[in-house]
Amino acid sequence: MRSWLDEQGLDGLIVPRTDAHQSEVTAPHDNCLEYISGFTGSAGMALVLRERALIFVDGRYQVQVRQEVDLAQFAVHHLHDDPLDLWLRGNAGSGWRIGIDAMRVAGGIYDALALGCAAGGGELIAITDDPFDAVWTDRPEKPVGRIRAMPVSVAGETSASKRARISEKLRTAGADMLVETLPDNIAWLLNVRGSDVAMNPVPHSFLMLDPDGRVEWFVDRRKLGNDLADFELADVELAEPEHFLDRVAQASTSRTVQIDPDFTPFAVRNGIDVSGGRLAARTSPITLAKAAKNAAELAGYRACHVEDGIALTNFLAWLDSEWRVRRARNLPLTELEAEEMLIAFRTERPGFLEPSFRAISATGANAAMCHYNARPETNTAIGAESPYLIDSGGQYANGTTDATRTVMFGTANAEMRDAYTAVLKGFLSLSMARFPTGTQGHQLDAFARRALWDIGLDYDHGTGHSVGHNLLIHEYPHRFGKKPNLHGLEPGNVMTIEPGYYEAGGYGIRIENQVEVVAHGPGFCRFSSLTLAPIDLEMARLEELSPDEITFLDAYHAEVCAVLMDHVQPETRPYLLAHTRPVAERVV
Amino acid sequence: MRSWLDEQGLDGLIVPRTDAHQSEVTAPHDNCLEYISGFTGSAGMALVLRERALIFVDGRYQVQVRQEVDLAQFAVHHLHDDPLDLWLRGNAGSGWRIGIDAMRVAGGIYDALALGCAAGGGELIAITDDPFDAVWTDRPEKPVGRIRAMPVSVAGETSASKRARISEKLRTAGADMLVETLPDNIAWLLNVRGSDVAMNPVPHSFLMLDPDGRVEWFVDRRKLGNDLADFELADVELAEPEHFLDRVAQASTSRTVQIDPDFTPFAVRNGIDVSGGRLAARTSPITLAKAAKNAAELAGYRACHVEDGIALTNFLAWLDSEWRVRRARNLPLTELEAEEMLIAFRTERPGFLEPSFRAISATGANAAMCHYNARPETNTAIGAESPYLIDSGGQYANGTTDATRTVMFGTANAEMRDAYTAVLKGFLSLSMARFPTGTQGHQLDAFARRALWDIGLDYDHGTGHSVGHNLLIHEYPHRFGKKPNLHGLEPGNVMTIEPGYYEAGGYGIRIENQVEVVAHGPGFCRFSSLTLAPIDLEMARLEELSPDEITFLDAYHAEVCAVLMDHVQPETRPYLLAHTRPVAERVV
Repeated sequence: MRSWLDEQGLDGLIVPRTDAHQSEVTAPHDNCLEYISGFTGSAGMALVLRERALIFVDGRYQVQVRQEVDLAQFAVHHLHDDPLDLWLRGNAGSGWRIGIDAMRVAGGIYDALALGCAAGGGELIAITDDPFDAVWTDRPEKPVGRIRAMPVSVAGETSASKRARISEKLRTAGADMLVETLPDNIAWLLNVRGSDVAMNPVPHSFLMLDPDGRVEWFVDRRKLGNDLADFELADVELAEPEHFLDRVAQASTSRTVQIDPDFTPFAVRNGIDVSGGRLAARTSPITLAKAAKNAAELAGYRACHVEDGIALTNFLAWLDSEWRVRRARNLPLTELEAEEMLIAFRTERPGFLEPSFRAISATGANAAMCHYNARPETNTAIGAESPYLIDSGGQYANGTTDATRTVMFGTANAEMRDAYTAVLKGFLSLSMARFPTGTQGHQLDAFARRALWDIGLDYDHGTGHSVGHNLLIHEYPHRFGKKPNLHGLEPGNVMTIEPGYYEAGGYGIRIENQVEVVAHGPGFCRFSSLTLAPIDLEMARLEELSPDEITFLDAYHAEVCAVLMDHVQPETRPYLLAHTRPVAERVV
Repeated sequence: MRSWLDEQGLDGLIVPRTDAHQSEVTAPHDNCLEYISGFTGSAGMALVLRERALIFVDGRYQVQVRQEVDLAQFAVHHLHDDPLDLWLRGNAGSGWRIGIDAMRVAGGIYDALALGCAAGGGELIAITDDPFDAVWTDRPEKPVGRIRAMPVSVAGETSASKRARISEKLRTAGADMLVETLPDNIAWLLNVRGSDVAMNPVPHSFLMLDPDGRVEWFVDRRKLGNDLADFELADVELAEPEHFLDRVAQASTSRTVQIDPDFTPFAVRNGIDVSGGRLAARTSPITLAKAAKNAAELAGYRACHVEDGIALTNFLAWLDSEWRVRRARNLPLTELEAEEMLIAFRTERPGFLEPSFRAISATGANAAMCHYNARPETNTAIGAESPYLIDSGGQYANGTTDATRTVMFGTANAEMRDAYTAVLKGFLSLSMARFPTGTQGHQLDAFARRALWDIGLDYDHGTGHSVGHNLLIHEYPHRFGKKPNLHGLEPGNVMTIEPGYYEAGGYGIRIENQVEVVAHGPGFCRFSSLTLAPIDLEMARLEELSPDEITFLDAYHAEVCAVLMDHVQPETRPYLLAHTRPVAERVV
């Protein structure tokens, strides 16, 4: 790497974590930060200088980075509290030339880094050829995952109709072209699904759309195969991804080009700029259209949630029984075994394709780490002294699922019961809310926190996110969180509701359902639960539930029982019956 | 005006509503929009062209503007839905020269208007001399309201100490100078109060502060009188306001100058720009420091709220009795009479200076207009068939008050009872909230709306605002509302909580207390009520209150009774006792 820096006349190279699509999960080909540093976390950035190197990671990864990275080589900094742009401001000397791959950095971050370099008289150099092609000798190839067509019957709308709608939005906005780099937006628009990265069924590609509906799709032809008959691509011009940047530049001259500033690589923005294009920066109209699920998509979500509920409930019943058997044998069940069994239950379900994300199967202190994934060296036996948390989901041909349940096989102590009850009350409070159509996520977030706040607790993550339709598990633009989110909720949005509580070094609790937004009287909406699985009440202080909360819980459990009873394994039925009975029938 | 346009070689003049200080309430001298159009509302903008004129007002004023303005002269547009900058984009022809008073428009609005003019090939001309000096022949003089010193014992901190704290903030931010144009910030910093505009005890003036604590105060010397002994002005350089812009320009060269982009006039920003200053645009450090009230200020708020509670409770008791007497005599009480009597009760209280805003004394459909002020031609008798709403407050030597009560002398119908109960529950929900220190207003707002949302209702205004310390009734930066507000709440903030419901053409309901934010366990806060006056429960469905709500209401009423009983008029005591008794003692 350092000899490459010499060749290029650079003093340093900034290595981002992400790829050209700002993906949350990247392909092995794109794991440049891991290659150079060993760091495997999902967010971060390194600066490799001639004499030293720095790595910037957020609060979640301060421990992990020190385990994975050679601290003799890398100084560790905090991604947000002590960010790279400020470091550059204080340390980048006069004449410094710092390179960055202009396809792997969004425009806003590039600007901050460029200002940081310039403050000390240095310069940020946008590199258009991937620097790691030269230095990473055994680099994995770019993925060429097969692309499949999503039938119109499942998608609910033809690609031509979607393109016409988006083109109309461009005309209204006065834009001459839309440049799209988000793979899930492209997948939605063209009614295709990809397989470049496991669990993320979107094809890495780029796309340009104009107000007349003309589409150029920059995609590796190998991913499509030879028979295009199943695809809705008759009016789509196919091009190779290598020509994307040149084509954007060529097509931008004197035209107004719309990009999403939060996700579009600097290389694209810069190409439009230097070609004399006018930038129109706003949330992609595809992101907004995709968020309002149509009737066929919603029917798909509901149907796959029945399948997913069968699998999850079979798993919970199996876990309840197996835990006791294995404990009696002194061979306690582990996190990895439980995760594997849940995948097995899902694999039986019709329409199941693959998990929608790596499950969080966690007990004890592991469950206090919100993004824990069990590995052989961390794999823990599920004991009686702390809760077991399972956050998982599936990709189905007709939708995507995401749910969390927390159960405990021993007796919860008073603190755990307080925390579980508050999490449950927060979950119920947001789930039961009625709100004006167009209400924004930041307005509703605190409903899920209030019961925790009442006892002096909170959780340090958002309360929910949009979920794609056999697309990404974390979809934009809607989000429940403290941070402002200006996208109003409307019927057809699909969200998660997932408050939790995490006692660092101790235990973790989370309850999560996926929900759809439905109309509820003129100008108002409410949530309708999609997830179908019993919510544990053993840890809850039932006497603290209000009559409204009990009515809601009982109705939810009655529906879970009615929908699932005929479809779960015979040995699951007693568990399902017991765990969905009304609150009044439980011993308080 | 049009001959003046000819002289200046202009095709039009934009006339903003506001003054150089972005004041909510302006002096007669600054009512240029009213002079040119007749429109008296608190927000708006006109464009006077050679052949025609346009006026832009928001949703609140669509009816009023058509009553006040000559529609043969002015075309009415919507300030937000159909704004002037977009109109200019579509209509400003090539070569058009449109003037605007550069001291009466904040930088961001100027930029939008300039872009609008430029889109059609026109130009926005920043006028530095007040255009109305030439055309408004009988224009009132600029106000020269007397400035008084606020004693350090009341302010709680010397001006020198405040200046040192703000200077330190400038040093930390790397700024060489702060330019301040907000009168309440200047009043707080210098421990002075003004009287340029009734009910708004702030002096119109400008100020510059550098990181060494050096202050230049641009203020009309006549306002200070000859004896400066009471003032903390020994280290303050006094200058005339006419020299402000020149001095800013002169002092800006090669320096980093901090301004608040939301409030600073374009003329100031432009002066810094053309002098080669570097702009640092962020919320004024004075706005932030002023929001965290110190112990002496908080003691003042609490003390003046006792006085204000005595006055308000005497008024409510008088109203309850007088309404019946006057009705028996067939001479029903009117909105204006009630307002006048409330001022009389406040005027008796020690420390009372003047009202803190024009009271909203409203019944029937008038109360459905959130910003109604009774005028002789609208003055309505308070009847038995709809609620009476009184939103009022006082300026006291040691604080500022703002409270709303809604009462009804007849029997409320079912709709009114539903709405009143929901408003009350929303008021209680936010008032009772515990929340992490630093929680932002947009996170808490929905607590006050949820009970209304549950029955399909809402209100179209914010839920609360900061209140100044013998300063402005609407203080920045904190606010409860749907719109994001990024300023976290901390102990010492003083806010209002004021949900309502408005049935257009029918009736209006609002319940408002002023509260302070107090610490409540490590890392958490709650609200403590400052307002002391009974909250009407006649209209409430008491059976819908939860045990927690009843406990809170009973404790609040017990405190109101205990604090006020010995100080209200003898004839108020039975009313106070009856209207603060526990919920359980009331007939349900």
